[in-house]
Amino acid sequence: MDLFSKVSRTAGKHSLLEEEIRKLPVPVSSVFLGKDGKIRPADFRQTDMTLVCKGHDRISQVFPKTIAKGGSIVLEAVASEKAATVSGKRVAVLFSGGPAAGGHNVLAGLAAVLGKQNTLMGIRRGPGGLVKGDLFEIDAQSVNSLINLGGFDFLGTDRTKIKTAEQFEKVKKTVLDNKIDGLVIVGGDDSNTNAAFIAEYLAKENIDCSVIGIPKTIDGDMAAGRYLPISFGFDTATKIYSEMVGNLTQDAASAVKYYHLVKLMGRTASKITLEVALQTKPAITLISEEIAEKNMSLGQVVDYIARIITLRRLKGINHGVILVPEGLVEFIPEMARLIAELNKVLSEYEKDISDLPSVENKREFLLPHLTAPSAQLLASLPPDLQEMLILDRDDHGNVKVSQIETEKLLIEKIRYRLSEMKRHTENFFGKGEGKIEADPVQIEDFKKVVLSTQSHFMGYEGRSSKPTRFDAAFTFQLGLAAGSLVLSAKTGYMAAITDFHKGGRVLALPLTGLVTAEMRKGKEEFVIEKSLVDLSSPSFKLFVQNRDKWANEDCFSSPGAIQYWGPTSKQVPLIVALDQDYPDFACFDLGEDKQIAPQ
Amino acid sequence: MDLFSKVSRTAGKHSLLEEEIRKLPVPVSSVFLGKDGKIRPADFRQTDMTLVCKGHDRISQVFPKTIAKGGSIVLEAVASEKAATVSGKRVAVLFSGGPAAGGHNVLAGLAAVLGKQNTLMGIRRGPGGLVKGDLFEIDAQSVNSLINLGGFDFLGTDRTKIKTAEQFEKVKKTVLDNKIDGLVIVGGDDSNTNAAFIAEYLAKENIDCSVIGIPKTIDGDMAAGRYLPISFGFDTATKIYSEMVGNLTQDAASAVKYYHLVKLMGRTASKITLEVALQTKPAITLISEEIAEKNMSLGQVVDYIARIITLRRLKGINHGVILVPEGLVEFIPEMARLIAELNKVLSEYEKDISDLPSVENKREFLLPHLTAPSAQLLASLPPDLQEMLILDRDDHGNVKVSQIETEKLLIEKIRYRLSEMKRHTENFFGKGEGKIEADPVQIEDFKKVVLSTQSHFMGYEGRSSKPTRFDAAFTFQLGLAAGSLVLSAKTGYMAAITDFHKGGRVLALPLTGLVTAEMRKGKEEFVIEKSLVDLSSPSFKLFVQNRDKWANEDCFSSPGAIQYWGPTSKQVPLIVALDQDYPDFACFDLGEDKQIAPQ
Repeated sequence: MDLFSKVSRTAGKHSLLEEEIRKLPVPVSSVFLGKDGKIRPADFRQTDMTLVCKGHDRISQVFPKTIAKGGSIVLEAVASEKAATVSGKRVAVLFSGGPAAGGHNVLAGLAAVLGKQNTLMGIRRGPGGLVKGDLFEIDAQSVNSLINLGGFDFLGTDRTKIKTAEQFEKVKKTVLDNKIDGLVIVGGDDSNTNAAFIAEYLAKENIDCSVIGIPKTIDGDMAAGRYLPISFGFDTATKIYSEMVGNLTQDAASAVKYYHLVKLMGRTASKITLEVALQTKPAITLISEEIAEKNMSLGQVVDYIARIITLRRLKGINHGVILVPEGLVEFIPEMARLIAELNKVLSEYEKDISDLPSVENKREFLLPHLTAPSAQLLASLPPDLQEMLILDRDDHGNVKVSQIETEKLLIEKIRYRLSEMKRHTENFFGKGEGKIEADPVQIEDFKKVVLSTQSHFMGYEGRSSKPTRFDAAFTFQLGLAAGSLVLSAKTGYMAAITDFHKGGRVLALPLTGLVTAEMRKGKEEFVIEKSLVDLSSPSFKLFVQNRDKWANEDCFSSPGAIQYWGPTSKQVPLIVALDQDYPDFACFDLGEDKQIAPQ
Repeated sequence: MDLFSKVSRTAGKHSLLEEEIRKLPVPVSSVFLGKDGKIRPADFRQTDMTLVCKGHDRISQVFPKTIAKGGSIVLEAVASEKAATVSGKRVAVLFSGGPAAGGHNVLAGLAAVLGKQNTLMGIRRGPGGLVKGDLFEIDAQSVNSLINLGGFDFLGTDRTKIKTAEQFEKVKKTVLDNKIDGLVIVGGDDSNTNAAFIAEYLAKENIDCSVIGIPKTIDGDMAAGRYLPISFGFDTATKIYSEMVGNLTQDAASAVKYYHLVKLMGRTASKITLEVALQTKPAITLISEEIAEKNMSLGQVVDYIARIITLRRLKGINHGVILVPEGLVEFIPEMARLIAELNKVLSEYEKDISDLPSVENKREFLLPHLTAPSAQLLASLPPDLQEMLILDRDDHGNVKVSQIETEKLLIEKIRYRLSEMKRHTENFFGKGEGKIEADPVQIEDFKKVVLSTQSHFMGYEGRSSKPTRFDAAFTFQLGLAAGSLVLSAKTGYMAAITDFHKGGRVLALPLTGLVTAEMRKGKEEFVIEKSLVDLSSPSFKLFVQNRDKWANEDCFSSPGAIQYWGPTSKQVPLIVALDQDYPDFACFDLGEDKQIAPQ
């Protein structure tokens, strides 16, 4: 073949890496292996572990059927002793929400454990496809062409919320029309809450269809401590962001003139930011959960950053990297209050405000309706941001918090703070509390600082990458587990894996044990609480122990590109290894490496 | 060691990958190997190849000393037959301009070939450090700790241009004070032009100091066809961008709702964009050189994109990736003319314009001074961009072209075009030239299109990565070559490597043969012309052959993360393999793998 053909033929997922990666063996936990060494469904037995969340009494009322079946008891997979395996079952799977690396290995795991004697169906474009009944049969060849590859593109995804009676009716119709015995929902906290409701609904309707959730989200917030240290996709996403941030730390020190400000995806939990910080050791890292806990104001956050920039400058360092979690603004208590007040006023006086011709008029109208601290804060924000907060609202009339350009806000505020420090050096330098010690020469030098910044947002590029070896193995086990649960006719569970460092322990967590009942704005809400950064966790403690050192001098390290071969390919996330007390982070063990051959 | 210590100790470039990558062997071309298998300097002999550029007569007048030494003849390295090696030489090296992956392996190559019997000095912070005389001796241990790592941070870099008599005097002082026998300048076109002048100046001053250039730039525009297919850093940068763009192609198809618009670094040449397109096969790719050649207007560029988005929509595809080279705007002829006119008017009427109070007043003043087509074009641009073009000027009073947010401009224009198409479907759909064939149902569906875009800029994250195996090998050879040239007392050459697929051929290109003399705005300028995308090259042809297919359906492939081990680790850039007519792109050969041990 000539080179023209060779290059042209890499199209359609046939890059050299894609070709080679399909051949990589995937580990299989011993519970899924028969005595012949072939994959077969595991059985599940009860453990002595139970999950009970806030509002459990109310949960028992809302999910009576599911609770009746298994209660709050965690199940554990064991190798099956049965002679025969189940056959003739039809299992449908869907992806929900944003993509995460490893989704296709969930399909591969499902296909492998269901075997030829059962049928795997794919639901197109997420929960919306389930409602519409948009299904197709997945053939073995497709699965084999997708193994170890990234993205959700084989099925697609969406964010449809299944809430109305009409939607549930349609789900029922899809299940009955397609004779589905099992429904596997791959998603985050919302989707797994949905799964709990669908499981209960189908049970109530006396339809024999297992509903099983699989924990997905790059944010890592769909987790349950020692039962489920992390969701799938987190490892791959954070390794990609760490590669890029590591490159930027090295670039900052090379070009010796820039501060790179990097906003990292993750609206709620700062787990991504914490993991990337542990991997790369940048000069400055903000963790939303800590800022909320310490009740820091925007001004205090800005001061913290400006102070580190100044201290570095005094040492002759005029560059660095600053990591900021995407959801920061909502975790600064005074900003959260301002946004809540704005939402209230904007909806109460919707008509009055929309009638006013200019932003200035609207602001004039708004300010007296805010509390004094919120009015002051709003007035102190950059004009662009004020305008955005006043004018841009989502379909529910709320401020579009996700659109706030946190990086621009911080940069503008930091610049202002530095200029203030230059104009009034006497207030910032010298002896005394909070002041920075510096000699006159250093202060004169500081006055010359020009802050050059580059801002970055990292998110989408980490969602659909080829999974790391860890995520590839993790998701394959999750698929094997979910398939086994369906074949055991369990319903209302989430497949989970733990003990990544010693063979993997395969669990099934009762969804009703994860869902909490809460009153929010007078309405009862059922939610799986997002797992945030725990400020008492070993991973956060390690970060706190080291951050001053990382701020004071360049300590960066650059973990580099994800490796699929070689000595670095078997890492787990640092926060998992630290918080689960593993002896190492560099060598996961999820079973026996198997070449997943075409069936 | 407990896990806390293990994680803490990854700080300061001790990530698992950094530790492992230092141990990776680097190939050494046979010309640098003695009979004992150890590294030793090569000799250089004349070839029958000569380099002659535009304005050669004038070049001969300006560079008489350099020309007298070697003329325009290309030299080739051969294994030395000499018994003894040179000793006691002092060689200084600097990095110039933006970082590129592999710089530290240049140092390692230099250190290896100079050996203990000579001294390697590092110049801090680029040409500025050369002028200031900021040098230090590089010890073997530092070099060994940096091998195969990324960035320029060991030396730093800057962009000082050495032009004035005073600066040349200072360079002379630095050379004499530090008894430097050789000066190695690692840089792009400007820096290598500088190297030519410094070589000539030192020769004229009768100072025995070799000056050798090394071709660096992620843009790949410091190249010389079959003598030097590419500069170092290009392979690593494009592989990182291809990883990210590949992930986005997969993400677009997974989330099924976004167009990701990606602006790729490279102010002049679109080589980065072409390489990334060949690697990932996105829906739409713009190549600046083609747009200039076809004299396309901004409107035509926008039409081209909007048409593909529409055709995809008619097939039910509402997502994709659009690649745009950073320098696009300057290559759209009408935009280039507008900018040139603006620069002229803004400088001619500087005072008048700055006296006017508002942007509106300034625009009012400007418009009559522009040609009609430029005035019309300016008025058609988004208000933000108009304001930026009128208000923001650099130190020379010119429009800050690099600050133009091309991605925002395009997105706004595409949106407008699509809304026009929706409002006047009769003008765009139907039979006839340029019209799109579609049935009424399709047209109604098209009217519902909401264009959701995410824009990205990829640049800095690709400059300081750990080099690919190719760039690591390439730069090590360049260091060996430059060191050998200095020890052979050659001056005014650029080290070059070619034939990456069969052992590597090591050349020395006379800098005076690369520099062209030109009259620009009445001033004589000496420049190394940037090597742009050649529209008749095989790589561009392959792109043109395939792009309609890539536009019509999802053909993306995702080359994935750079691999340092395993079957995909030995790739060369596709444009190099295609344009140099290699039989394959997947297996470079630059010599015998050597463990570069501490000296």
